[in-house]
Amino acid sequence: MPEVVFPLDNSKKFTDQQIVGHNRWHPDIPAQVQVKPGDAFRVECREWFDGAIHNDDSAEDVLNAPLPSVHVLSGPLEVQGAEPGDLLMVDILDVGPVPQEDSGPLAGQGWGYTGIFAKENGGGFLTDQFPDAYKVIWDFRGGVATSRHVPSVSFVGIVHPGLMGTAPSADLLATWNAREQELIDTDPDRVPPLALPPLPDSAVLGTLSGDDFDRVAREAARTAPPRENGGNQDIKNFTKGTRVFYPVFVPGAKLSMGDLHFSQGDGEITFCGAIEMGGFIDLGVDLIKGGMETYGVSENAIFMPGNVAPQYSEWLAFSGTSVTLDGKQHYLDAQLSYQRACLHAIDYLTKFGYSPEQAYMILGAAPIEGRLSGVVDIPNSCSTVYIPTAIFDFDVSPGKGGPHQVDPGQGVPKASF
Amino acid sequence: MPEVVFPLDNSKKFTDQQIVGHNRWHPDIPAQVQVKPGDAFRVECREWFDGAIHNDDSAEDVLNAPLPSVHVLSGPLEVQGAEPGDLLMVDILDVGPVPQEDSGPLAGQGWGYTGIFAKENGGGFLTDQFPDAYKVIWDFRGGVATSRHVPSVSFVGIVHPGLMGTAPSADLLATWNAREQELIDTDPDRVPPLALPPLPDSAVLGTLSGDDFDRVAREAARTAPPRENGGNQDIKNFTKGTRVFYPVFVPGAKLSMGDLHFSQGDGEITFCGAIEMGGFIDLGVDLIKGGMETYGVSENAIFMPGNVAPQYSEWLAFSGTSVTLDGKQHYLDAQLSYQRACLHAIDYLTKFGYSPEQAYMILGAAPIEGRLSGVVDIPNSCSTVYIPTAIFDFDVSPGKGGPHQVDPGQGVPKASF
Amino acid sequence: MPEVVFPLDNSKKFTDQQIVGHNRWHPDIPAQVQVKPGDAFRVECREWFDGAIHNDDSAEDVLNAPLPSVHVLSGPLEVQGAEPGDLLMVDILDVGPVPQEDSGPLAGQGWGYTGIFAKENGGGFLTDQFPDAYKVIWDFRGGVATSRHVPSVSFVGIVHPGLMGTAPSADLLATWNAREQELIDTDPDRVPPLALPPLPDSAVLGTLSGDDFDRVAREAARTAPPRENGGNQDIKNFTKGTRVFYPVFVPGAKLSMGDLHFSQGDGEITFCGAIEMGGFIDLGVDLIKGGMETYGVSENAIFMPGNVAPQYSEWLAFSGTSVTLDGKQHYLDAQLSYQRACLHAIDYLTKFGYSPEQAYMILGAAPIEGRLSGVVDIPNSCSTVYIPTAIFDFDVSPGKGGPHQVDPGQGVPKASF
Amino acid sequence: MPEVVFPLDNSKKFTDQQIVGHNRWHPDIPAQVQVKPGDAFRVECREWFDGAIHNDDSAEDVLNAPLPSVHVLSGPLEVQGAEPGDLLMVDILDVGPVPQEDSGPLAGQGWGYTGIFAKENGGGFLTDQFPDAYKVIWDFRGGVATSRHVPSVSFVGIVHPGLMGTAPSADLLATWNAREQELIDTDPDRVPPLALPPLPDSAVLGTLSGDDFDRVAREAARTAPPRENGGNQDIKNFTKGTRVFYPVFVPGAKLSMGDLHFSQGDGEITFCGAIEMGGFIDLGVDLIKGGMETYGVSENAIFMPGNVAPQYSEWLAFSGTSVTLDGKQHYLDAQLSYQRACLHAIDYLTKFGYSPEQAYMILGAAPIEGRLSGVVDIPNSCSTVYIPTAIFDFDVSPGKGGPHQVDPGQGVPKASF
Repeated sequence: MPEVVFPLDNSKKFTDQQIVGHNRWHPDIPAQVQVKPGDAFRVECREWFDGAIHNDDSAEDVLNAPLPSVHVLSGPLEVQGAEPGDLLMVDILDVGPVPQEDSGPLAGQGWGYTGIFAKENGGGFLTDQFPDAYKVIWDFRGGVATSRHVPSVSFVGIVHPGLMGTAPSADLLATWNAREQELIDTDPDRVPPLALPPLPDSAVLGTLSGDDFDRVAREAARTAPPRENGGNQDIKNFTKGTRVFYPVFVPGAKLSMGDLHFSQGDGEITFCGAIEMGGFIDLGVDLIKGGMETYGVSENAIFMPGNVAPQYSEWLAFSGTSVTLDGKQHYLDAQLSYQRACLHAIDYLTKFGYSPEQAYMILGAAPIEGRLSGVVDIPNSCSTVYIPTAIFDFDVSPGKGGPHQVDPGQGVPKASF
Repeated sequence: MPEVVFPLDNSKKFTDQQIVGHNRWHPDIPAQVQVKPGDAFRVECREWFDGAIHNDDSAEDVLNAPLPSVHVLSGPLEVQGAEPGDLLMVDILDVGPVPQEDSGPLAGQGWGYTGIFAKENGGGFLTDQFPDAYKVIWDFRGGVATSRHVPSVSFVGIVHPGLMGTAPSADLLATWNAREQELIDTDPDRVPPLALPPLPDSAVLGTLSGDDFDRVAREAARTAPPRENGGNQDIKNFTKGTRVFYPVFVPGAKLSMGDLHFSQGDGEITFCGAIEMGGFIDLGVDLIKGGMETYGVSENAIFMPGNVAPQYSEWLAFSGTSVTLDGKQHYLDAQLSYQRACLHAIDYLTKFGYSPEQAYMILGAAPIEGRLSGVVDIPNSCSTVYIPTAIFDFDVSPGKGGPHQVDPGQGVPKASF
Repeated sequence: MPEVVFPLDNSKKFTDQQIVGHNRWHPDIPAQVQVKPGDAFRVECREWFDGAIHNDDSAEDVLNAPLPSVHVLSGPLEVQGAEPGDLLMVDILDVGPVPQEDSGPLAGQGWGYTGIFAKENGGGFLTDQFPDAYKVIWDFRGGVATSRHVPSVSFVGIVHPGLMGTAPSADLLATWNAREQELIDTDPDRVPPLALPPLPDSAVLGTLSGDDFDRVAREAARTAPPRENGGNQDIKNFTKGTRVFYPVFVPGAKLSMGDLHFSQGDGEITFCGAIEMGGFIDLGVDLIKGGMETYGVSENAIFMPGNVAPQYSEWLAFSGTSVTLDGKQHYLDAQLSYQRACLHAIDYLTKFGYSPEQAYMILGAAPIEGRLSGVVDIPNSCSTVYIPTAIFDFDVSPGKGGPHQVDPGQGVPKASF
Repeated sequence: MPEVVFPLDNSKKFTDQQIVGHNRWHPDIPAQVQVKPGDAFRVECREWFDGAIHNDDSAEDVLNAPLPSVHVLSGPLEVQGAEPGDLLMVDILDVGPVPQEDSGPLAGQGWGYTGIFAKENGGGFLTDQFPDAYKVIWDFRGGVATSRHVPSVSFVGIVHPGLMGTAPSADLLATWNAREQELIDTDPDRVPPLALPPLPDSAVLGTLSGDDFDRVAREAARTAPPRENGGNQDIKNFTKGTRVFYPVFVPGAKLSMGDLHFSQGDGEITFCGAIEMGGFIDLGVDLIKGGMETYGVSENAIFMPGNVAPQYSEWLAFSGTSVTLDGKQHYLDAQLSYQRACLHAIDYLTKFGYSPEQAYMILGAAPIEGRLSGVVDIPNSCSTVYIPTAIFDFDVSPGKGGPHQVDPGQGVPKASF
């Protein structure tokens, strides 16, 4: 095991740890850990809600999820010698749930969860069709996830960090805040909101205190979206063996990470989220000096996925176009066409006995693939969602004999305002 | 070789063939060929522009591409016993360029093309960055494509039909026309247009003539977009070994197909298009009676890709978010985030000596994958584009040594208005 | 289609063709076709018994198979500029059954066969357990093989030439004859024989005639075994996209090929053989001058398989050790341990309702993999045979519910002396 | 982490542990651990030489390796309810080196070794060509192995137990001893020996003592070979996600395991051996009652490999036939043809600057595949060895430019008698 440079005590809250991390992006959050090019090291990570979601059969915790507190990140790590304009190479050497612990009250101790936010508190990809809160608990055994809430499905986890990135420069942060506020201003009362402005409430900013804390808390960007620094990209293939290249915007790079997922479908369509958990990540770091210019990387991560993700040779795929459920034609809207593809998949799976919520949860947590299949055929975008058939313990393909019927069991816990 | 039920003579234009196909969707275009469930048969297909694009080093033909004439489709085929509400199972038994012909004037005779439309005549995914017309010729050898216009790249073709589908019912057609006109009406003078309304000019409607022809030509839908009947889905994985399930909307199903591609990247981002060609497709058909209700398929195709597409174990991936190039924040816009991911890939490849046009052409023609990686992390969508590194004859990954320099050669032919 | 440099007329016997090939190895068989480095071309091939095996339900033809006549090879092809010491690069651009023909009396016209020789006429891998002659007919549809003689199994063909190679030098030929005769002399009356000495009977030697014919027929090596020149390697992965490097022993290399297989399991354990057929192969050739010394290749082919073979993600594997069925311990005998692994697989499959012959035929024809798993653990070799589970239309894995029962149908035709 | 039912203290020798395992097979070695069907649990394992091989640059320890002491196994585990005739299902939930330890004196603490035994003490697959002792140290980082003794090579480990199996019945043990002694008697003084008879010296037999110990030590079978109970199968694909089915010969099954490998090539041709290490294995067990009869499994394991082994899409393969280096023809000898294929690969790699020992070590440790390609083409067997090209940091394929030259560095430590 590489040296643990960012340790966590599972019995303590995020803010009570030996090293306190952060849940906002800002260049002035001090690095508390130093690593150097060539190093390998371990970082421990809290699950993104710091333990607020429980292994039970109620969705009340998801209904009231404390959104201002996310994501609790481990970092920043200073990479010695990193300067603005460099590319920071990060090798994901290993990543997993809380090591050597198979049960316990925290997500990552042998279990994880997938939630769907209520429309009034977070919303999600299909929030118009699923406006309430839902939660599913997944149990881990041998790297495989199963759930008492979703029968007849199991899959090998493609463990990955949902969020990793470097600190923005002051200029870049200002750009973020300006452009997102401009968007918010187009519909400031929207539920769910268009974007999340800086929010001092619940901000955690490492060692900062006093006036510095107050200033940074007012300015710091929320962690929900992916941005130029990487951030919450939620790329399901960021697993063991992956090499990522991040732009460096501040001296020392200030790398942070968190939001570990045991597994996720492309898009993380359930929003709350993949299969969420705490755990560890082992990283190696190196620098390509001046790499941003050399390789034309002005923003956003480049990455090379590893070659150990589970292989599937049979997929069932659904397509969707950019026409709304009530028949309105949109112009080349891939977000919409992916929604329609996912809704088609949900409709299909309900014919096998699943509830719509169970089907939605499968798409959020299992290693499904979402593809931008056609993006030019005006006016319809064509998106497709691929489900590996081997995750079901029955034959899920269409045939003359009609669909197998699953016993849906207790189903998915639900909570409403 | 299965029986050829829809033959073509390569020396004749589409409208001079023994069986004349069609280039519009309408339920009243008569089926001229009958097949029955269980049959296997061959259909020959013209390239989508019916031979208007030539194997030369000029892009004038793409600049002036006759858009009203597309797509020249083979069909309709009547499947005996098919009734509205059934699912039509179509097995793609084989698909390829013009068989036994290795050279000739027609795309599919040992070569194919990828084009980029000029903004004033077609446009495309990155039309603001690439407003002119471009063309690349690809040569086929042993199932592998290479190009004199794009050096140091080669890849096995994943041959597939860009377009296949059943005929719409009269009601469904009316719905299409209404919703697309409503969209057009929001900006009727836009260049390129938001959608393409029915257009009698250049309509080919099989055996129809006289008043029937005129009526149908006025009503029939254009073939550019994918819709509820499948249509121009441009799914690059629709290759040999794939099983597709189409909804049946009219008696006999009236299956049509065309727009064969030797290879394509996810999205067909160059629009004109993949690697375009004529050729053949061998199909098997069968029916799941009442399958639309049984499997919850009210619209859009379900499919199961085959297992013989080329395997790649190393990919280089680029991410993008839904912020425009000039810094405007959009809300969860996957079309935009995929554009940004593709532009990042293009910027990167130019550092290796490619022109931006060459890089764009690679993304359009090679088997790249486009993923909807994050679709909920407000306000930013995260899309990713994966390029298999093995298609380059040099090391395309980032490293401390800096990028290898390709000799770009004669480059990509260009034409402008 | 590349130029056909070695054409065949399917209505004529091997010896009545425009260009007559050969069925023995000898440096003095004249090349009748010239190709040059960089060329791509097509060669048509007869099935190895020149049409003696029929599409029927009798195994009499296999019982009396004319072994002295094999393998009917297309060639030799002279590669201009090739000299002893070079490496001949051969790209398999495409390979398939008789093109554009879906039915007919010849294997390759929409069908192929797998046979098991009787012990008295050929024998085979498991000849002690299966001493009679058997035959199975496979039908091709869309690149997939199924059989009326073996129900509930289907698989995509990995089409390949069983045999390809360069001509031996006179010295090398003399070495072959000497060492094989020495082996034969240890048990000259063995049935089946230990090896096959030169045999003028049924020899076909291209354009040779008169005294030259007689001399060469007396000296020429049989084609059954693989040797330093490649030859009958029966490597199931020699499919489309593969690049092979052959040593060059004579001026012009004199490349020959044949024995096309639609599919084969590792080992071609049924001997007669894989799924045998006639058809075509498209090749590209090039030279690495002096490559034998440069790359240390004194004998035997090097190859790089293509990346389009069908992918399977679930396998059922059986192991065997080098102990005979009657309990005798052999020392690190991988041939024996593979026999035992195959017999274990056969025993297993019979529990699902297959006859032993059906199970044997599956192992011979389907894309199973045979691995040398342990070769040092004295005294037992450990070999393993992997069967892709997806080739069965039922669940073939062991479970608490017991094996599914297949209806074996008419079974495998058999014939005995 | 599942409960540790068989713990080890890395600071103590095998015989000083809290639970002492065994290094011989005998039905009377008492089970000290009980598990029941449905359980998941962890077993810790010593490396096979119990720490006798060190992380240094000398091969003296391999030269004098204490062969009578191997393999130090963890077990036996009693599976409640298991009876002779059952099939024991074993799921490999996880397996890895010593957890949470990245450095230390024991193989498995961040490193492992591959050795080649001297001919006089163990021998090996190519002992005639490599009669001395050699050792290579591999370092683990992020699941990837590299070595200071073999430059320019790295690969993801496919971690697996080389040895796992159930206890033999008394009858089966007697059969083993009889048949192996019969083989030994054919050449009792051979160096290396043909097989290893029971050997009281260095026997470790769990809790047995006194007369029982002496009797069992005289009777118990050595652990080197694979046999009917599984045993030392050295199957490189027995990794995480694999399900194995073992015959049960004694009440409680008495499952034992050990000989963990970080990685191995097919055949474990270096004998001492793969990349050897200690570590842990997490297992799940279940029973198919009466499964041996139900599934026709009288002996030898059946298994279904997992789907998370690293994927490679480009391989370089070498073939060999059953002719000895000095030109003697053997009859269908796959052991010999695999030796020749491996020697061809070694010859090839030396042209890139590797020493023969370095090349041999690569074949022993990296995930190469050994295939029984042709087993019927009298008199020559054809075996092939496939090397994934991606394990080299240079282009290892043949080309016109000639081989890249590696700096072989310090090379492989060697020791001789």
